Amino acid sequence: MEYRIEKDTMGEVQVPAHVYWGAQTQRSIQNFPIAQDINKMPKEIIKAFAYLKKAAAITNYEAGVLPKEKSDLIGQVCDEILTEKLDDQFPLVVWQTGSGTQSNMNCNEVIAYRGHVLQGGDLSDKTKVLHPNDDVNKSQSSNDTYPTAMHIAAYKILVDVTIPGIVKLRDTLKAKAESFRNVVKIGRTHFMDATPLTLGQEFSGYASQLDHGLRAVYNSFAHLSELALGGTAVGTGINTPAGYSENVARHIATLTGLPFVTAENKFEALAAHDAIVEAHGALKTVAVSLMKIGNDIRMLSSGPRSGIGEIYIPDNEPGSSIMPGKVNPTQCEAMTMVAAQVMGNDVAIGIGGSNGHFELNVFKPLMAYNFLHSARLIGDVCVSFNDNCAVGIEPLHENIKKHVNNSLMLVTALNTKIGYYKAAEIAQTAHKNGSTLKETAVALGYVTPEEFDAWVKPEDMVGDNNF
Amino acid sequence: MEYRIEKDTMGEVQVPAHVYWGAQTQRSIQNFPIAQDINKMPKEIIKAFAYLKKAAAITNYEAGVLPKEKSDLIGQVCDEILTEKLDDQFPLVVWQTGSGTQSNMNCNEVIAYRGHVLQGGDLSDKTKVLHPNDDVNKSQSSNDTYPTAMHIAAYKILVDVTIPGIVKLRDTLKAKAESFRNVVKIGRTHFMDATPLTLGQEFSGYASQLDHGLRAVYNSFAHLSELALGGTAVGTGINTPAGYSENVARHIATLTGLPFVTAENKFEALAAHDAIVEAHGALKTVAVSLMKIGNDIRMLSSGPRSGIGEIYIPDNEPGSSIMPGKVNPTQCEAMTMVAAQVMGNDVAIGIGGSNGHFELNVFKPLMAYNFLHSARLIGDVCVSFNDNCAVGIEPLHENIKKHVNNSLMLVTALNTKIGYYKAAEIAQTAHKNGSTLKETAVALGYVTPEEFDAWVKPEDMVGDNNF
Amino acid sequence: MEYRIEKDTMGEVQVPAHVYWGAQTQRSIQNFPIAQDINKMPKEIIKAFAYLKKAAAITNYEAGVLPKEKSDLIGQVCDEILTEKLDDQFPLVVWQTGSGTQSNMNCNEVIAYRGHVLQGGDLSDKTKVLHPNDDVNKSQSSNDTYPTAMHIAAYKILVDVTIPGIVKLRDTLKAKAESFRNVVKIGRTHFMDATPLTLGQEFSGYASQLDHGLRAVYNSFAHLSELALGGTAVGTGINTPAGYSENVARHIATLTGLPFVTAENKFEALAAHDAIVEAHGALKTVAVSLMKIGNDIRMLSSGPRSGIGEIYIPDNEPGSSIMPGKVNPTQCEAMTMVAAQVMGNDVAIGIGGSNGHFELNVFKPLMAYNFLHSARLIGDVCVSFNDNCAVGIEPLHENIKKHVNNSLMLVTALNTKIGYYKAAEIAQTAHKNGSTLKETAVALGYVTPEEFDAWVKPEDMVGDNNF
Amino acid sequence: MEYRIEKDTMGEVQVPAHVYWGAQTQRSIQNFPIAQDINKMPKEIIKAFAYLKKAAAITNYEAGVLPKEKSDLIGQVCDEILTEKLDDQFPLVVWQTGSGTQSNMNCNEVIAYRGHVLQGGDLSDKTKVLHPNDDVNKSQSSNDTYPTAMHIAAYKILVDVTIPGIVKLRDTLKAKAESFRNVVKIGRTHFMDATPLTLGQEFSGYASQLDHGLRAVYNSFAHLSELALGGTAVGTGINTPAGYSENVARHIATLTGLPFVTAENKFEALAAHDAIVEAHGALKTVAVSLMKIGNDIRMLSSGPRSGIGEIYIPDNEPGSSIMPGKVNPTQCEAMTMVAAQVMGNDVAIGIGGSNGHFELNVFKPLMAYNFLHSARLIGDVCVSFNDNCAVGIEPLHENIKKHVNNSLMLVTALNTKIGYYKAAEIAQTAHKNGSTLKETAVALGYVTPEEFDAWVKPEDMVGDNNF
Repeated sequence: MEYRIEKDTMGEVQVPAHVYWGAQTQRSIQNFPIAQDINKMPKEIIKAFAYLKKAAAITNYEAGVLPKEKSDLIGQVCDEILTEKLDDQFPLVVWQTGSGTQSNMNCNEVIAYRGHVLQGGDLSDKTKVLHPNDDVNKSQSSNDTYPTAMHIAAYKILVDVTIPGIVKLRDTLKAKAESFRNVVKIGRTHFMDATPLTLGQEFSGYASQLDHGLRAVYNSFAHLSELALGGTAVGTGINTPAGYSENVARHIATLTGLPFVTAENKFEALAAHDAIVEAHGALKTVAVSLMKIGNDIRMLSSGPRSGIGEIYIPDNEPGSSIMPGKVNPTQCEAMTMVAAQVMGNDVAIGIGGSNGHFELNVFKPLMAYNFLHSARLIGDVCVSFNDNCAVGIEPLHENIKKHVNNSLMLVTALNTKIGYYKAAEIAQTAHKNGSTLKETAVALGYVTPEEFDAWVKPEDMVGDNNF
Repeated sequence: MEYRIEKDTMGEVQVPAHVYWGAQTQRSIQNFPIAQDINKMPKEIIKAFAYLKKAAAITNYEAGVLPKEKSDLIGQVCDEILTEKLDDQFPLVVWQTGSGTQSNMNCNEVIAYRGHVLQGGDLSDKTKVLHPNDDVNKSQSSNDTYPTAMHIAAYKILVDVTIPGIVKLRDTLKAKAESFRNVVKIGRTHFMDATPLTLGQEFSGYASQLDHGLRAVYNSFAHLSELALGGTAVGTGINTPAGYSENVARHIATLTGLPFVTAENKFEALAAHDAIVEAHGALKTVAVSLMKIGNDIRMLSSGPRSGIGEIYIPDNEPGSSIMPGKVNPTQCEAMTMVAAQVMGNDVAIGIGGSNGHFELNVFKPLMAYNFLHSARLIGDVCVSFNDNCAVGIEPLHENIKKHVNNSLMLVTALNTKIGYYKAAEIAQTAHKNGSTLKETAVALGYVTPEEFDAWVKPEDMVGDNNF
Repeated sequence: MEYRIEKDTMGEVQVPAHVYWGAQTQRSIQNFPIAQDINKMPKEIIKAFAYLKKAAAITNYEAGVLPKEKSDLIGQVCDEILTEKLDDQFPLVVWQTGSGTQSNMNCNEVIAYRGHVLQGGDLSDKTKVLHPNDDVNKSQSSNDTYPTAMHIAAYKILVDVTIPGIVKLRDTLKAKAESFRNVVKIGRTHFMDATPLTLGQEFSGYASQLDHGLRAVYNSFAHLSELALGGTAVGTGINTPAGYSENVARHIATLTGLPFVTAENKFEALAAHDAIVEAHGALKTVAVSLMKIGNDIRMLSSGPRSGIGEIYIPDNEPGSSIMPGKVNPTQCEAMTMVAAQVMGNDVAIGIGGSNGHFELNVFKPLMAYNFLHSARLIGDVCVSFNDNCAVGIEPLHENIKKHVNNSLMLVTALNTKIGYYKAAEIAQTAHKNGSTLKETAVALGYVTPEEFDAWVKPEDMVGDNNF
Repeated sequence: MEYRIEKDTMGEVQVPAHVYWGAQTQRSIQNFPIAQDINKMPKEIIKAFAYLKKAAAITNYEAGVLPKEKSDLIGQVCDEILTEKLDDQFPLVVWQTGSGTQSNMNCNEVIAYRGHVLQGGDLSDKTKVLHPNDDVNKSQSSNDTYPTAMHIAAYKILVDVTIPGIVKLRDTLKAKAESFRNVVKIGRTHFMDATPLTLGQEFSGYASQLDHGLRAVYNSFAHLSELALGGTAVGTGINTPAGYSENVARHIATLTGLPFVTAENKFEALAAHDAIVEAHGALKTVAVSLMKIGNDIRMLSSGPRSGIGEIYIPDNEPGSSIMPGKVNPTQCEAMTMVAAQVMGNDVAIGIGGSNGHFELNVFKPLMAYNFLHSARLIGDVCVSFNDNCAVGIEPLHENIKKHVNNSLMLVTALNTKIGYYKAAEIAQTAHKNGSTLKETAVALGYVTPEEFDAWVKPEDMVGDNNF
């Protein structure tokens, strides 16, 4: 490979001749040979940097500290980054400096050198049109840019991927609830037969879980909307022009279409990432819901002949390499695995978030990585589960009917007629004798056959069935 | 010990003669010999049951399904429970049935039998004025009462203990920030010397963390305010009179003074406890903040002679059984241990919350136990830390001044004058030579002594110092 | 209440007149009002201190640095502590100084003052026979005694409570496996019908899980057997006589009957508690096994009429306050709740363990508390589950037979005869048509009826059935 | 793109014309569009499948159920897979069926079709030399192959990457301990000045942590060495020839050079992955150690002028985009971020491990993914931290000397001469007056100057300094 020589404040570094990055990026590649093939800095962070670098350039220009041409040139490269055409210029990994300084410098270098080339310059030129620190990073520090990128990336992926996925699944579950409104089935508590409900009611609970989960995610937006940018090195905003914080937040809001504002306290915004902890707590809540829903769906569809078997789910692929004809609830499995991952990520984020020291938290890339992973997984798996499973769910009426009619817990309807204790005696006797509730109730002399038929109707035991 | 015989639907049970509980409570004692000395069902849950049983009795009376005298009698015992005089009548542990049925029955039995005694009856009477199931538990199931008690207890402890504790500490930290506004000190990022800020700014970050944490807690109230009561066995509300759900929620709101409403979906409210997961996520966020604050305070106060030593914290007790005169940041230690506990509890709650099956989650007591533990610990430790540490924090001006004046990072002020690279050269040279920034800067010929004095002033490097 | 005045190096403190504790214990009560009613320092830690204080006194006497009478007197009080008669003299909580210094001093004070009284002295005497620091704490520091107490308590509870509990349950599960050896049943993978196995094989898997879990616990003993005592303040052993570390470990081993040795590196033993992290990892592994076993048992016993219903578990108590006659798998619920708690405790312990700084980890009481909690819960719940559930498990042959005979996955036996694809076609066709495997296989022309009967026998599909 | 048509038991699927995979792989791509760009099935799993497929083919040949040519051909493709030249033929993600069936089929298909091409066949041929199910998957099921691959991959990465990394760092820390043996420095407990130790002793504690961590990892090998292969569908070993389990384990041991054996209980080996939970518990213990070591190193090196500053660590890169000349402990940051990740992964693995149901755990890919991630991260970060930080650590003697000589805790040496209380008075008075210990001790009349000099020598307070 051909190389060129780049310099930073520590001296010279050999860099592949044709890449846009410079000395500091190269040092990071060499100094952090940690899982480089699988843990690249998430692309959402790189794009978030593009938004903020462009916004900073505009703000600097408006404040009179950066010439218009430089500002425009920076913006032009940022636009290229957003199209993903420069993706291979960001080789760094998550496991680097905990402030993300090296990824900030990677952005600064690529923007400066690509800008120089766009202006007709050459990568080997000693002096370049743009300087990574003095121009591209002007009025910025890694310490405020990286957390700003975290909030932009986090907010954006929630809006672009996570929420649409949850909403899609929620809507399908709601529609299913509506469509299953009149399917009376046995309820189960403690895995044991209980009083009836409708399949619609059961599914309405799943939809309600996601409804509440969405609200939890929305609740986290207020804190996520606060941007650290303008705090620079330690939160004081050293080396920024007047009004910078507010203006740059406004520009970021415009560029992203999201309601970002400057953080109300920059010291909190650099030294702690509680907004990420808080927002991921909402994602974990959604994960907990998805685990419950995934488990229920696979248990309800279990069988086909020796399980619960009350719903049909689509057959998507052969289920076994050895058992011919087997079909498995694989979408449930992907979804519950995702749930477990998000619950694990939550711990990593909490540990990272709790370990800020003095003016800076240096677990930033870890926190960004785990947050974006969870947000992406939840969004993707909701869509996958929705399209390949939820939309195709149908009741298996025969089993449903058999189960509800067999259930001893229909006896509960008699509580208000004959009291809890006599009702219990009926159920226990029927259970012991393998007899039906009706014949037992009558045999014990507690009700007449007519009373039984009038009082014990599954379809009357499901309440108003509004949800 | 003397015994009397009690009966339930399974037969006879020997019960200590003078206790108010009955057969089902006794069975639970015998069937669950698990950590009985250390893991009693939290008293907050028992009190929450008192609120809801009273509210249910009133609602049942108003609906015409329970006589006034019975309703009043139930209410009278519930009031006794709230005064804690019946505390020894609730012997059950957390590790019982996962629906909390046995604690619900414990309440039902104690209310029925204590009511009977209040009416002049005797515990050995075959028939009692109140029946545990048919009267005290009327229009209820464990499956909706226990989660209702969880929400009441959770909301109440947040309002009564957790939030006041956090607010108290937040207010002290805010006051300290104000009082330290003019104390210019060195900043530290990556544990390394950085540009200056004021001690007030540093403390404002802590206060801001708690401000945001409080908002996260408040955000969780909406979901917590939803009560499952009225869903009974599986969410359908079987065996409840018309309007029961709304009315009983209204009565609970009145009795507790908290804005409870009936849950918008009872199936979600029984089968999932995402509200607890979500709210505990907020507590975990606060724990993460407390870990950061506790760590910073102990590091800032470290020494007294060979540490950072920038703040004084109160000497509360001898710190060592072997090292005479040693004083330690023990309140920080209690606080960070609490933070670790809450982060662990969060995982237990998440696992419990994700394992609801069909119409019921049967990890309820586990979830209640961990939630109440965390809420209590955070509230208590904030007060303890506040009273025994935070209020007494003072700057140690001598060390503060020494550190900020020595710092090589004051060179950052020169970036905008001579560029990042020359500034770096000054800092590196001074570091290598052990010289001061000023003499190095002048020796390198980059600034005059006058320029240096005019440009490099710590007090000018702390921004507008508003927070 | 009456008080007396006690003094420590910080001055005077009012102490209840008749308690054996002194100034430093009292200060801790006042300085740490955190969950005092529910989070006392675990009694296992107090007893462990009794062992080690006695051993230290003997060792000090043998080394010639403590008179025989003082050594004997200290030992006498330690023996009293071990009988639990002084339990009310240990009022401190977990949430104190992170080194446990105050509980060490609590022990020192109680031993000194109780010893003084045993010698006929009075609590109000200015000078006492024993001095808490100079005699009882001789050759010790909190920094080496508390971690020593952690290891003693942890090892002892594993041997006394946890392992016997696991072994008891393992043995029952093994016996059940033996007794169910010939019960051929359907297998289930992905919750779906699969090829058959015996109920004995299924239970042998549970027993094997616990077998492996026990080995994991045993593996952790090597590290737990290392005692920090002798490291004193920072690990160097300052103020200890020659040979002290080895001798005191030997005496502790004799007193406890457990193979304790002096830690190979005292700096590790004070500054890190990886032995606790490691050993709790084994407990977490057991918890994971218990979650799996508890879930399987409740699902296998689900019904009674509309679930899987392949095993009977004992009816221990009425299961519902509203549904008469309902019986629930409550022991499974207690066990799985315990599993969730242990998994949460594991995170708290990991966070505590990772936060040692320099020469001391100050999350000691948190780590001890969570470890002992988990060890106790696992031991207790295994016994409870064993006695109240596992021993009573019996197969429900009718359901078992129905399920295995219905299963389409018996077709797997044909793979080696007619190939995977034709076998799949048979299963799929039978599933679609609701027909039996045999009639479908014959109708498709792939086998004769005789071949089918000869090749597809559930009892031939369970391998050698050795386990 | 060009396509060809492939078939499985569910029908036809369009597959890119030139790939070696078939219908089932293609279905998985289409059915699981979840994080496909970032969460490929780990390559270690694919390689482990290559080992086991080859071993199975040999075993099948030896058992007379597979012709030699087919066995050889399968082995030939497996060898190609091990060279990584077929890496792009394994496009599936972690978030698929929880049994990993689709990755097993991906292997079966690629081996069959690549084998066919190696024999001169064409991908479009209707009939191929090898059949994915009937030949490549012979005597196997996903349910036993995937967990076998998990153990092979886990054991191998521990031996190849994790352990060598830990050993390397452990050795460096040991060498540093040796080389720093005579550097007497202040100890710190609770972040506060304590009695002295040597820098060598301090580092010996770190080395000892890793020593113990390595033993924990070794302890997990016994369980990891057990292979599920031979259990096939549900653990009974249906459709395997006699002796298969033992023989295939022996062949895998030979091929990998690792001491694999057949699992003692196949039902445990399919339905639970406690071996992975247990082994990852060891990795988490190591992570906890690395967090402690990383924190200590960064705090000891903090400054350069206003921190602890007792050790030098290498300057690897410019530390700040805004603060010129700043150097940060970036390797510590990468290492502590890794530690947090591993602690999070541990929770994901525990949740996955606890959720096996009946005869199969279907969180397999999740567990494999997290395990391999942790194992890789720990191995890589130990090497990176070692090479770029640990090897370059040197004492900063000036600061070390200043700190130890200033310390008030040297007074501890007087305990055994004048008692704890008088010693405390000296320390407290010196602290209050800002005076030295010596002048205070003499002024208080407790010692003569000569006694002080004889008794209070830091170098005599570090014990025998053996480690």
